[in-house]
Amino acid sequence: MSKNDLKEAKIFSLAQVVDRCIVVVEEIGGPRLVPIWIGIFEGGAIAAELTGQEPPRPMTHDLMMRMLKSAQAVVEKIVINDLRDNTYFAAIHMTLLGGEKVVVDSRPSDALAVAVRARCPLYVAEVVFQKCPELLKPISEDEVKSFKEQLKNMKPEDFFKDLKEKP
Amino acid sequence: MSKNDLKEAKIFSLAQVVDRCIVVVEEIGGPRLVPIWIGIFEGGAIAAELTGQEPPRPMTHDLMMRMLKSAQAVVEKIVINDLRDNTYFAAIHMTLLGGEKVVVDSRPSDALAVAVRARCPLYVAEVVFQKCPELLKPISEDEVKSFKEQLKNMKPEDFFKDLKEKP
Repeated sequence: MSKNDLKEAKIFSLAQVVDRCIVVVEEIGGPRLVPIWIGIFEGGAIAAELTGQEPPRPMTHDLMMRMLKSAQAVVEKIVINDLRDNTYFAAIHMTLLGGEKVVVDSRPSDALAVAVRARCPLYVAEVVFQKCPELLKPISEDEVKSFKEQLKNMKPEDFFKDLKEKP
Repeated sequence: MSKNDLKEAKIFSLAQVVDRCIVVVEEIGGPRLVPIWIGIFEGGAIAAELTGQEPPRPMTHDLMMRMLKSAQAVVEKIVINDLRDNTYFAAIHMTLLGGEKVVVDSRPSDALAVAVRARCPLYVAEVVFQKCPELLKPISEDEVKSFKEQLKNMKPEDFFKDLKEKP
């Protein structure tokens, strides 16, 4: 499997830990998870959409979607495409009115806030699974409980303390 | 002067007060100010651009501008166009590639974060000056000092406690 292969993915969990959030992305049809620390504002933007909140005024990512719609650009997919120096990278793929395709570099937090609003597919590059801390989906109820406890007590450093780039 | 007349404006000051921000907008060529309470995230987004910060990764409003650029949409102007029920309203005016003009409804905080990045003109509708709490530019050094103290000690309620809609 090439490092550039893409695996379809979706959001597995989103949790606030003190003043940050952890969003965990899961591969569809496989056991692997990708834990990503994001800001509380961006976490809130993802949560608001996932829980169907309808704020009285457009929040920042809602405005972003309205602007894109007005500009007749369609978000086709989001790709979390790399992890370098403890930083995840993502790309937002759009199609313009004339059919032209453009790709915009983004933090994964914004990309996920866009993905849940655009209801578009989300992909994670194989290289990201290879570089990120190993984390597998909990299966039994006990495992789910222990996973949740583990997330609650984690600090950003914990995710990366054992991180070694694999070949 | 009609309520719909637009006055060219610019940002006069931006201050954090506990966990919110006050951005004060001034009319150009006149003494009036418009004080607007905004979220700390949006305040940070305005401040980052005003102070020339270059974050290592695109922050949310930077991403918004990159997406618009990719979609070949140009932000022409921002208009703070109404104040209803203690909520300010704004509009972002854009021109699309084919020359079509579109207007997107926005909170003023996002609109200002866009304006400082697009370096586009900012306008305030006359009706907003008429409805907002009366606040004039400080002129002497003492007035500036007292204005800063006043801002520091204000709560959102203070701006609106004397607010009566004028005819």
